[in-house]
Amino acid sequence: MPFEIQDTIIDADSEVRIRQHLTLVALGKEKADVALRVGRLLDVATRTWSQDQEIIIKDRRIAYVGKAGSYPGEVSTRVHEPDLSAVPGLGEVHKHIESSHLTPEWEAALVLPRGNTWTCEASHEFSNVNGAKTLEFWLKAREAGSPLKIFPLPGSAVPPTAYEHGGGYLGYDEQKTFLQQSLMTAGLDEVMDWPAVWNPENPSHERLWGMIRATFEKRAVVEGHAAGIRDLPSINAFAAAGLASDHEAWTPEEFWDKLTHGLFMELRPHSLPEVIKGLLDRGLADWSQIALTTDDRSASDTLKLGATDHNVRLAIEAGLAPEIAIQCVTINPARHMRLTPWVGSIAPGRYADIVLLSDVEKFEIAKVWADGKQVSDGKTYLPDVPRIDWPEWATNTINIGRDLTAEDFAIKAEPGRETMTAAVLRPFHWTDDFLTFDLPVRNGLVQRDESRNITKFSVIDRFSGKAAVSKMFWLGCGPSTPDTALACSMAHDKHNVWCVGSSDEAMAKAVNAVADNDGGWALVREGEVVARMRYEVAGLMSCRPAEDLHEEMQALYAEGEKVDWMYEPSFHPRWFAGFPERLAFATLTCAPWRWVLVAPCDHAPQGLVNVETGATHPVVF
Amino acid sequence: MPFEIQDTIIDADSEVRIRQHLTLVALGKEKADVALRVGRLLDVATRTWSQDQEIIIKDRRIAYVGKAGSYPGEVSTRVHEPDLSAVPGLGEVHKHIESSHLTPEWEAALVLPRGNTWTCEASHEFSNVNGAKTLEFWLKAREAGSPLKIFPLPGSAVPPTAYEHGGGYLGYDEQKTFLQQSLMTAGLDEVMDWPAVWNPENPSHERLWGMIRATFEKRAVVEGHAAGIRDLPSINAFAAAGLASDHEAWTPEEFWDKLTHGLFMELRPHSLPEVIKGLLDRGLADWSQIALTTDDRSASDTLKLGATDHNVRLAIEAGLAPEIAIQCVTINPARHMRLTPWVGSIAPGRYADIVLLSDVEKFEIAKVWADGKQVSDGKTYLPDVPRIDWPEWATNTINIGRDLTAEDFAIKAEPGRETMTAAVLRPFHWTDDFLTFDLPVRNGLVQRDESRNITKFSVIDRFSGKAAVSKMFWLGCGPSTPDTALACSMAHDKHNVWCVGSSDEAMAKAVNAVADNDGGWALVREGEVVARMRYEVAGLMSCRPAEDLHEEMQALYAEGEKVDWMYEPSFHPRWFAGFPERLAFATLTCAPWRWVLVAPCDHAPQGLVNVETGATHPVVF
Repeated sequence: MPFEIQDTIIDADSEVRIRQHLTLVALGKEKADVALRVGRLLDVATRTWSQDQEIIIKDRRIAYVGKAGSYPGEVSTRVHEPDLSAVPGLGEVHKHIESSHLTPEWEAALVLPRGNTWTCEASHEFSNVNGAKTLEFWLKAREAGSPLKIFPLPGSAVPPTAYEHGGGYLGYDEQKTFLQQSLMTAGLDEVMDWPAVWNPENPSHERLWGMIRATFEKRAVVEGHAAGIRDLPSINAFAAAGLASDHEAWTPEEFWDKLTHGLFMELRPHSLPEVIKGLLDRGLADWSQIALTTDDRSASDTLKLGATDHNVRLAIEAGLAPEIAIQCVTINPARHMRLTPWVGSIAPGRYADIVLLSDVEKFEIAKVWADGKQVSDGKTYLPDVPRIDWPEWATNTINIGRDLTAEDFAIKAEPGRETMTAAVLRPFHWTDDFLTFDLPVRNGLVQRDESRNITKFSVIDRFSGKAAVSKMFWLGCGPSTPDTALACSMAHDKHNVWCVGSSDEAMAKAVNAVADNDGGWALVREGEVVARMRYEVAGLMSCRPAEDLHEEMQALYAEGEKVDWMYEPSFHPRWFAGFPERLAFATLTCAPWRWVLVAPCDHAPQGLVNVETGATHPVVF
Repeated sequence: MPFEIQDTIIDADSEVRIRQHLTLVALGKEKADVALRVGRLLDVATRTWSQDQEIIIKDRRIAYVGKAGSYPGEVSTRVHEPDLSAVPGLGEVHKHIESSHLTPEWEAALVLPRGNTWTCEASHEFSNVNGAKTLEFWLKAREAGSPLKIFPLPGSAVPPTAYEHGGGYLGYDEQKTFLQQSLMTAGLDEVMDWPAVWNPENPSHERLWGMIRATFEKRAVVEGHAAGIRDLPSINAFAAAGLASDHEAWTPEEFWDKLTHGLFMELRPHSLPEVIKGLLDRGLADWSQIALTTDDRSASDTLKLGATDHNVRLAIEAGLAPEIAIQCVTINPARHMRLTPWVGSIAPGRYADIVLLSDVEKFEIAKVWADGKQVSDGKTYLPDVPRIDWPEWATNTINIGRDLTAEDFAIKAEPGRETMTAAVLRPFHWTDDFLTFDLPVRNGLVQRDESRNITKFSVIDRFSGKAAVSKMFWLGCGPSTPDTALACSMAHDKHNVWCVGSSDEAMAKAVNAVADNDGGWALVREGEVVARMRYEVAGLMSCRPAEDLHEEMQALYAEGEKVDWMYEPSFHPRWFAGFPERLAFATLTCAPWRWVLVAPCDHAPQGLVNVETGATHPVVF
């Protein structure tokens, strides 16, 4: 453009200047950059194809769409793709980029070739590590020119419960500021602490409603997360609270009940085939309140399965018309998130993000354009990935305070006792009470019992620098190989460090190894660190190509296979046998969890707390 | 509720408190007011009916929807309508209540029995009379408890062009303030001055884009008005400018071109049958980007035809499925206007606005509920209409300065000329040039020529108090009866007073009669005032029942029938023979108008100006 606007971060002032010029380009009064002529083009507003269309592009935006040859103005470059079908860049309505474990610029390199050009970032994870920097963090890559449009939604669960601390506090003032600072902030991320929403006595009630209030004030979207909310009164209450969406429905019945009670429904891959088939069986004719979305997917899985394109293919395989499946990742989520002026359709004024398909039924992506330029042919990412020197506040986030020792993980018995009763949890243990087991005491310390699949699980405060460690006995989730431990700095949602191990020495060693690496995974086998995975950004992400990350993760898995892992079934399909990667989600404190282990806090010095009632309990008694 | 919230004007703070209680009501933990059990209920998200449902209401809101008997809580009152079908309260996405000529509380009494429970008020008219009071004016009735939810969109055309003044100025600061002051402000009303949008040289360019900028900043909706914009480059440019909608498409082709270029399309009755049939012929399967709306309709016409219900019936008669037609006046416009948390569906959290139909195919309304109470059985309005003492700033708006005389309307000839050439306009004269006629001069004044259907048309400044009058010769639109004139204070969009007459004396008399009445219509026939219609609020509306207004208007028409009216065809169907009521729209200055008559201004002292180019011309030469 004849004026200096980056057009990466959307703001009203630039928006006006960009659109003033774009208008003149559309009229043929200013010169356009590119005419991209395509075999056919999908209009997602009417769900219809038009043949032989040209898309006229100026800088990063679409100025004009029409029959090939109809544009009245001059164009610098002409590109013709007669055999390809153009659909809008695909959007994620609810995704945690942190779960890719890639920094945003490397996430872009991974997902853009797979058609994903815009993402509503559900910033539960980063916000819990450094809440104050939520917006700055998520906009950095885009500011540096990365073509992936990330619309941050600050985490509503910061802290996830009133019993967790460190990493920041997001309430009314913070949310208001985020929404005021940038139009990129699309709303409030998944309100998931249901007891805090409905129960006025809950200690997070006021904080959470403060964030909701700020979001209403700024005309933005309050996203929901209604896991385990299946009965009609609770679904009604959830909608009455003003939570606009859910992405946690597991069955067609649950999905239907939520959809028909005013919730915008976001469908994730694991329940997608069953739900789509169920909706088709019911003859659903209007899919406008439905989106497909990813939520969490590792870089490894994206390399294997795909990104948003995988979700679309799954929907088509389940019987959904490809055009409707495409609407579910373009106009539907854009409309729900109030982002239609910028994304969700191939129409004037929107970013020139276009997915070119060689086969629509199979959703085979031939090329991807973003910001008015081709960014991929097939699976390769063409642009340079901007080099971002992530600042200290993003990279120096593991602050335990000192090296830990075995003693930090010891659980003392009452004097004179030969056994103690232990309060025991399993991963994804969603019942009202914890389990209890009598465990032997040796040298004044309560012992694990491998014969009953009982080992030790720990959460280490990574924020305060006070070497605060909570620990208890867990069932069926750790190594039975001696002197072995696994630790990780991804511990949803507060993202302390968790560790599970067959000896206290191994646990200390594993946690110290994670801390030395500024975050990530560490596996100690029979006393030695045998594998590490580095997440040097926020202890959650790594600044490197997905392929490198994948390789390092495979090395961790390979070493993990040499360990014998305990297993006890729990909530299926959340928990399964083998390398216990999903322990990173077993530290969640939202509904439907009840008893959980958190880092030591004033309310629960040993860390064992019922997040629904606030009750605490000693870990042994 | 156990707390004092009116819940009439939406604000974030009350919203939070209301929803906190509503959530407890949904869960059955607090008592509900009413259970309204219905024979069946339409969910507009899925477009499906459910049988025998109960709607649980607390105060003005819906707390719960489900199978009859499923609500777990206590209820004070139970109502059963086994034979009626419930659909959401109907919404107007673009309506000028001023065109009903009723103040908002009386508009409510008129339209609520006809199913219309919420209206996005296109405040072109009132904003042009008193821009600064736009928000205060439109919220007053709701504050007083009127159940019609009015969401004001401040007029973008205040002033309509740079050549008009008085009544206020709305720019960036004003729009920002309106959006900041209330969540009821839904956006920016129909941007219609297309030359000012695209042309950087246009004197309104900066003001208009300032309003657009403020609207983007506040995440609100920029409504469009693309009259006469039919070629593909202009449609593309219109969408590229960020104008989100249009309601001016006249044919299926135009409608389709706009719909497929990213515009949300609002369909008005006069083109509705043809457009709906055209879209059905094309096999349109997705109607989610379409709304039906009224724009302008007099109280008389609403009494005869209906309100939003009329639009729905027209659509059904044109072949649209009733359920889709209902979506087009409920969820579709609510989603477009970002009002889904409050209106557009029978779902928890929304206002309890419910239309009960005795016949869905015929769209026969049996009863209407609004704000949780029955407000109509059949055609009657049940609540008391709140008495509003409209303040001085609303009622004292006709400020001409003094009584006018015949001399104010005289058009002087150059000395010594026997004829003068007159620049002549017709109503809805949309060509690039004005017409010219040679007219006789008598006593130094240029004369009308009844034999060629040429009479005098005038615009009288009603804001400055300077008795400023512009006048010129118009073709085919006034009385040929001698000494006869018609005047009115509704003169879109600046709403000065216009007058057309066969003698200057009659014109002066008619305008003085309008002014004496604080606005409205006056008809002078053969020297005598024979009929008046009072619009004492803003010179546009009257504070009384629709039926009274209708009666007075009929009296005006009856007297008007005794007058011989000239006629020359112009743009069909905008202009037709008989009582020239539509002269009130012939003073428009938006696209596609070119030459228009405005009140005298510095730029055009005689008032004749080309609003596209800014050119001026003497009215005789």
